[in-house]
Amino acid sequence: GFAKIDNERELRNGYPEVIYCAGKTVEQVVKIIEFMLTKKNNILATRADKDTYEAVYKICPEAVYNELGRIITIRQKETKLTDNYIAIVSAGTSDLPVVEEATATAEILGNKVEKIVDVGVAGIHRLFDKLDIIRGAKVVIVVAGMEGALASVIGGLIDKPLIAVPTSVGYGTSFGGLTALLTMLNSCASGISVVNIDNGFGAAYSASMINHL
Amino acid sequence: GFAKIDNERELRNGYPEVIYCAGKTVEQVVKIIEFMLTKKNNILATRADKDTYEAVYKICPEAVYNELGRIITIRQKETKLTDNYIAIVSAGTSDLPVVEEATATAEILGNKVEKIVDVGVAGIHRLFDKLDIIRGAKVVIVVAGMEGALASVIGGLIDKPLIAVPTSVGYGTSFGGLTALLTMLNSCASGISVVNIDNGFGAAYSASMINHL
Amino acid sequence: GFAKIDNERELRNGYPEVIYCAGKTVEQVVKIIEFMLTKKNNILATRADKDTYEAVYKICPEAVYNELGRIITIRQKETKLTDNYIAIVSAGTSDLPVVEEATATAEILGNKVEKIVDVGVAGIHRLFDKLDIIRGAKVVIVVAGMEGALASVIGGLIDKPLIAVPTSVGYGTSFGGLTALLTMLNSCASGISVVNIDNGFGAAYSASMINHL
Amino acid sequence: GFAKIDNERELRNGYPEVIYCAGKTVEQVVKIIEFMLTKKNNILATRADKDTYEAVYKICPEAVYNELGRIITIRQKETKLTDNYIAIVSAGTSDLPVVEEATATAEILGNKVEKIVDVGVAGIHRLFDKLDIIRGAKVVIVVAGMEGALASVIGGLIDKPLIAVPTSVGYGTSFGGLTALLTMLNSCASGISVVNIDNGFGAAYSASMINHL
Amino acid sequence: GFAKIDNERELRNGYPEVIYCAGKTVEQVVKIIEFMLTKKNNILATRADKDTYEAVYKICPEAVYNELGRIITIRQKETKLTDNYIAIVSAGTSDLPVVEEATATAEILGNKVEKIVDVGVAGIHRLFDKLDIIRGAKVVIVVAGMEGALASVIGGLIDKPLIAVPTSVGYGTSFGGLTALLTMLNSCASGISVVNIDNGFGAAYSASMINHL
Amino acid sequence: GFAKIDNERELRNGYPEVIYCAGKTVEQVVKIIEFMLTKKNNILATRADKDTYEAVYKICPEAVYNELGRIITIRQKETKLTDNYIAIVSAGTSDLPVVEEATATAEILGNKVEKIVDVGVAGIHRLFDKLDIIRGAKVVIVVAGMEGALASVIGGLIDKPLIAVPTSVGYGTSFGGLTALLTMLNSCASGISVVNIDNGFGAAYSASMINHL
Amino acid sequence: GFAKIDNERELRNGYPEVIYCAGKTVEQVVKIIEFMLTKKNNILATRADKDTYEAVYKICPEAVYNELGRIITIRQKETKLTDNYIAIVSAGTSDLPVVEEATATAEILGNKVEKIVDVGVAGIHRLFDKLDIIRGAKVVIVVAGMEGALASVIGGLIDKPLIAVPTSVGYGTSFGGLTALLTMLNSCASGISVVNIDNGFGAAYSASMINHL
Amino acid sequence: GFAKIDNERELRNGYPEVIYCAGKTVEQVVKIIEFMLTKKNNILATRADKDTYEAVYKICPEAVYNELGRIITIRQKETKLTDNYIAIVSAGTSDLPVVEEATATAEILGNKVEKIVDVGVAGIHRLFDKLDIIRGAKVVIVVAGMEGALASVIGGLIDKPLIAVPTSVGYGTSFGGLTALLTMLNSCASGISVVNIDNGFGAAYSASMINHL
Ligand SMILES: Nc1ncnc2c1ncn2[C@@H]1O[C@H](COP(=O)(O)O)[C@@H](O)[C@H]1O
Ligand SMILES: Nc1ncnc2c1ncn2[C@@H]1O[C@H](COP(=O)(O)O)[C@@H](O)[C@H]1O
Ligand SMILES: Nc1ncnc2c1ncn2[C@@H]1O[C@H](COP(=O)(O)O)[C@@H](O)[C@H]1O
Ligand SMILES: Nc1ncnc2c1ncn2[C@@H]1O[C@H](COP(=O)(O)O)[C@@H](O)[C@H]1O
Ligand SMILES: [Mg+2]
Ligand SMILES: [Mg+2]
Ligand SMILES: [Mg+2]
Ligand SMILES: [Mg+2]
Ligand SMILES: [Mg+2]
Ligand SMILES: [Mg+2]
Ligand SMILES: [Mg+2]
Ligand SMILES: [Mg+2]
Repeated sequence: GFAKIDNERELRNGYPEVIYCAGKTVEQVVKIIEFMLTKKNNILATRADKDTYEAVYKICPEAVYNELGRIITIRQKETKLTDNYIAIVSAGTSDLPVVEEATATAEILGNKVEKIVDVGVAGIHRLFDKLDIIRGAKVVIVVAGMEGALASVIGGLIDKPLIAVPTSVGYGTSFGGLTALLTMLNSCASGISVVNIDNGFGAAYSASMINHL
Repeated sequence: GFAKIDNERELRNGYPEVIYCAGKTVEQVVKIIEFMLTKKNNILATRADKDTYEAVYKICPEAVYNELGRIITIRQKETKLTDNYIAIVSAGTSDLPVVEEATATAEILGNKVEKIVDVGVAGIHRLFDKLDIIRGAKVVIVVAGMEGALASVIGGLIDKPLIAVPTSVGYGTSFGGLTALLTMLNSCASGISVVNIDNGFGAAYSASMINHL
Repeated sequence: GFAKIDNERELRNGYPEVIYCAGKTVEQVVKIIEFMLTKKNNILATRADKDTYEAVYKICPEAVYNELGRIITIRQKETKLTDNYIAIVSAGTSDLPVVEEATATAEILGNKVEKIVDVGVAGIHRLFDKLDIIRGAKVVIVVAGMEGALASVIGGLIDKPLIAVPTSVGYGTSFGGLTALLTMLNSCASGISVVNIDNGFGAAYSASMINHL
Repeated sequence: GFAKIDNERELRNGYPEVIYCAGKTVEQVVKIIEFMLTKKNNILATRADKDTYEAVYKICPEAVYNELGRIITIRQKETKLTDNYIAIVSAGTSDLPVVEEATATAEILGNKVEKIVDVGVAGIHRLFDKLDIIRGAKVVIVVAGMEGALASVIGGLIDKPLIAVPTSVGYGTSFGGLTALLTMLNSCASGISVVNIDNGFGAAYSASMINHL
Repeated sequence: GFAKIDNERELRNGYPEVIYCAGKTVEQVVKIIEFMLTKKNNILATRADKDTYEAVYKICPEAVYNELGRIITIRQKETKLTDNYIAIVSAGTSDLPVVEEATATAEILGNKVEKIVDVGVAGIHRLFDKLDIIRGAKVVIVVAGMEGALASVIGGLIDKPLIAVPTSVGYGTSFGGLTALLTMLNSCASGISVVNIDNGFGAAYSASMINHL
Repeated sequence: GFAKIDNERELRNGYPEVIYCAGKTVEQVVKIIEFMLTKKNNILATRADKDTYEAVYKICPEAVYNELGRIITIRQKETKLTDNYIAIVSAGTSDLPVVEEATATAEILGNKVEKIVDVGVAGIHRLFDKLDIIRGAKVVIVVAGMEGALASVIGGLIDKPLIAVPTSVGYGTSFGGLTALLTMLNSCASGISVVNIDNGFGAAYSASMINHL
Repeated sequence: GFAKIDNERELRNGYPEVIYCAGKTVEQVVKIIEFMLTKKNNILATRADKDTYEAVYKICPEAVYNELGRIITIRQKETKLTDNYIAIVSAGTSDLPVVEEATATAEILGNKVEKIVDVGVAGIHRLFDKLDIIRGAKVVIVVAGMEGALASVIGGLIDKPLIAVPTSVGYGTSFGGLTALLTMLNSCASGISVVNIDNGFGAAYSASMINHL
Repeated sequence: GFAKIDNERELRNGYPEVIYCAGKTVEQVVKIIEFMLTKKNNILATRADKDTYEAVYKICPEAVYNELGRIITIRQKETKLTDNYIAIVSAGTSDLPVVEEATATAEILGNKVEKIVDVGVAGIHRLFDKLDIIRGAKVVIVVAGMEGALASVIGGLIDKPLIAVPTSVGYGTSFGGLTALLTMLNSCASGISVVNIDNGFGAAYSASMINHL
């Protein structure tokens, strides 16, 4: 009735449909997961609040909830981890929810992940301390709010693809993440591409495709 | 005086500094190229108008000009081409300048390129005819103006990283490419990341990094 | 006092005044409906929350409430259904409230309706499965949030008028539906016209006028 | 090479591909028309400047140019005119270019057209003088710039579908037509749908679909 | 301490300082009123919620609260009413809060007021029924949300100054009243000036100045 | 054909139709003036470039051109000047074109005018020197670009209606006059209403209505 | 784990890291403060709600809370006050929270502060009464919402650096402080620089640097 | 007539009025300079094109023109240079015009200046090479376009006041400098204040005030 689960997505895109919970009722999410459970796939549900998780938990106690990242994962089959890793770097402590969404997504998609958090440009030496681990990644995700300058700085220091995620951290003219997004789109460093504000899921999905090449 | 060429960039980023000609005088561009020629690198100058090219040509007749893409290239050393290719797909004939900027960039960075142009969603069968060649690429660049829907459609059909380039093609509420950019950032297909409006160079630079992995 | 019901609207526009509940007190809505009941017309009240419905129900137990679509309908006279139908197509499960507002509106205006939901471009084969039923309609309503690309894709495949409704589904740069609106206004497919964000009512009203031609 | 003419569009959409000349070189437009002439279809090219027309004229002296509407038409086969007509109503003299684009489009698509110009709300009696002819149409196009209020006023007075075209006439906060567009999208009159700023072509295309029902 | 009441304002501007309650604590408002009571002026406090009123009532039981208009008035001295009146015209029932703010302001400033509500352009005959009373005013205030077209229509029909107040009534692209504001600023009717969104107070203040000339 | 001159406007609004030349061809303006000359009214044409004036001059050598204000006036009948005057105050030298448009409009509408220019807030004593003449007016027009603060300052010092005109003077974030407009709409001084950016004509028209009360 | 306190910041910037509480959990703030207490620095935490303060108070009863300014300060070592003072001037009572944030910041950074509040341009004589104290400062902070004109007026009257802070006080087109920000950026008075909306902290930090020169 | 030169500005602000040439006719600029020459002050005219300079040169051959910075200076009296210097740092070669406007302004205001250009974050080592000279300044101006990240990076490394100037260098979503402006306003480094886009003059004026403390 209300949903047409895209069963062929794994064939076409290499991964089954991901459930975007915002704007769906708890009942709708539960019914979609119920159906997908019968397909024996791993399941990923983003933007899930606690109520949704509790309802899902009732039909599937294997469901795991990352509260900060508001993400539900259900592993029904083993995924082989990549040898290469994705580096997920963030500017400040307030960006952690997006880091968590990205990490949970990358991991269920079978990627090894290295997290380097709170290394924003206000104290740039913190970044230089971690440069080797960032340079060792096959692809780098940079998560930053406010003015988002971290993406440019890292972009100028590495030779790997960089996916930038602006976050809604900030106030006033940060315009809910728009400023960080614009910064990242206009970076004078090359090799940076950008996803929607707070879209840790999308960044990890793209990075996973690259990491699996 | 007026410029500090970044000689270590090739070491750090895998490629020497690229010259962005907009906002520079012809004399400034010529002096920068003169200096870089002494370093024996391949040279790439974007957003170059015809006057700039003619002045560059005088000091370096090997300089090649792609008029539609407004890009000057000078090859001073051989680059080995990749076995994999980048697919560069565009929606309409009016998007060609950006396609050309991306192609010239990708090629001087040592990539094999397949161009598939004028396959926008108004006549979607044109896209389906070319799906195999798109799916065969290691990474796909999608160039589209107006509403930019082509990125979403292709993103839903492939399992490779996709870099979307919005173009300034359109009028009225296309807002000089902003609408296409927003479309691409909000795609319901996963695995899409985005660069600045008309930034064929940046898309190709990112794609090249991925294609060389 | 506070309202001047437009009694001649049915003569002028073919349908009596519709009540927009947002920004009105429950008491105001009840008094307007009380007055209109005396005119023996069918009554339509949009953007009605549950409290409003309950107060209306007390004075008129025939009132029907579509909770998802936040719409109250009261049928006081029979309407002959059209032979032709309006197809209402939507991209994702989260767009359902707007689909419901459009459907309830179209039906009380006397139209046969076919709903085709959750066929967004991330899994485009779902759309192709339903193309015959869409092509069979006299007029098509397309409801989509996020990047709104579904309107362009359908617009390129049919030869009937298409009314596109952007929804506020999405986050970040979806800007509460603005991105989907812009996409639809800039469609490279011809024959698409657009209504305000989340305006399922307005799309159905226009479609009904066309379906009754 | 640079274009993939969509030959099946007439089958799919009921009308062959229309050429959008903006952003194409004169040579590209000429080559596209040369190819389409061999298909014996009627040809429509919008946003064509005088130079483009002159180049087209050289290969096809039957080509007709509407200078105000910047539109080239070539009739290769007879089209039967509809019995019903489309009313094209405009607010001021400065809106005429868009009126012309809409009229030329509607006519080559086989529609009878009635033009009612310069009846903006600053002198509303001019509109009331023409109300009968507007009410007699099967579908109405309203073209207005500045504040675009004419669409709402007419929408409140008729019972036919109305397609509103905002124009870029105005200055300052008219923002190149954005204000008129917003006015039209938020009309308190029902039954109005909207196309892009200055998109006389798109309005006529939609209206023609409706007029042919 | 926290406020410098502008005691000379009546001399300079013809009316004592008006208290804008938004962003002030209840205590601050009470202290300002306490001080102003000692000056024996009439007192006007706008944007006052119910809590504020109740606290004011405790120190001054003569205080009157207009709940819809969120405005507190205290009359300490008689004001002679003007012979001329201000017409306050509004488009819909949802605009009433702004109408009430304007009316309460105009009245305490000593003006006779005529209210004509719910005569928006969707049913324009309702306006024509009231045209004589509008034309009889010395100055006209027009209050409208959504697309705000009422201001243009009235502006084209009268020869008196018209002050337009856009309201935040609407949704989606009404952008909290911005669309109505833009409409009013771009009116093709002459003699219209505009105040901030929902600023019934400001419109009445200007109208009162004119009505007292 | 292309225009419907609104002959009853003088009856309805107290003044005949004013010609807005932008977006009209020289021929159209000439034809409209030719027709209006036969009506023996005074004629006002705004936004007229020099070419338009020269063509008008050929058919009517009495036509006067204010080059800075880009305005053509033709006096065919005497107008009695008001006893009261309108004060037109401006912030900087660069605002003069708008001052001229306002002055020419006010004068042909029969108003006495006092101009006080270049008294912006950067040197506020210049304003205080002129305060008496400003306070003596029946209505005040304030013309200012950049940040437009002059309107607030004057508004706080007078007890007469003030019409503020933002100008497009400035650069960067002045956004072509938008900043000055926003400043004026949000003035903490009461009694200010606002017209469109650079709309000297509209301000003078409103002021004239007030000055004639 | 979740945070990398920047211990060298005092050396580099002259002051230890300041905690921005928004977007951090209470636990995170407490842990950061716990760590910093061990360093014996003075501690400043901005945007702290009452819950956060109470949790901090439990581990450190010396913590002081400025409720209006939402700021926590902990003094662990004496700071010598400057001889010069910073003047903090504000337009209205509603701007006080930002004044408080600026004052608390300036004071813990070791500055003498003079506050002059509620002297907005609607009653400009209030400002002139305080001009001597403003002119006596080494650097001036101006805090204003609504149209923000106060910054320009003061800027034109002093010869000291002025840092302007736009506040989110206002409604409608004040756009949450954007209008005041734009006003301040476009001031025709020279010597004004601007910080983010409501950023009392940032203004005080800059002013402190200047005051310590 | 058309201008009121602010002769007391030097007394009030420490420097005579500066002429903003944009929007003034050549004749107006010449007349203003003619008048100011009689006052024996140093003269500064910004945004002056070559034609203006040539006309000024005719009446005053001592006038000096900085073509890149579009600025005219006339020295009529000696100014003592400060011992401290202002560092003016820029990101790229395309930012030079703004650097020149700032430098010429700072110098005629009596400041020693150190320029450090082309040290943008794409090659951050170039910045580190110059850090000592930047740290040695009394106040630092940072000029950057595109994403403007340089201001944040420098702000995190110094303990002196920093004035950031966004430039209009860039394309697409750089929005004529708006992105760089937003970046700078939202910097996570403290001690940064910002001026209007391309306002090298304003930054230098503020910096000069600080440098003279
Ligand atoms: N957090 C997220 N951000 C963006 N897209 C998402 C997110 N989570 C899921 N999606 C995608 O959004 C689509 C949701 O469509 P639907 O569930 O039909 O409304 C799915 O195809 C997912 O691939
Ligand atoms: N400078 C101006 N700014 C705004 N409106 C104007 C101006 N000049 C004339 N108008 C009005 O704009 C309308 C022009 O409509 P039209 O000439 O039919 O395109 C007339 O009704 C005038 O009252
Ligand atoms: N480049 C500039 N950017 C911003 N303000 C300027 C600039 N040049 C001069 N000004 C100021 O702008 C004002 C110009 O006012 P006016 O010359 O009367 O139009 C003067 O007071 C100057 O202080
Ligand atoms: N509803 C309102 N809208 C706009 N301005 C108002 C309103 N009510 C009062 N004011 C003005 O706002 C200012 C309030 O400043 P303050 O009380 O000092 O914050 C006063 O000068 C009033 O004239
Ligand atoms: Mg941190
Ligand atoms: Mg094509
Ligand atoms: Mg779905
Ligand atoms: Mg007209
Ligand atoms: Mg109503
Ligand atoms: Mg001046
Ligand atoms: Mg106050
Ligand atoms: Mg450089």
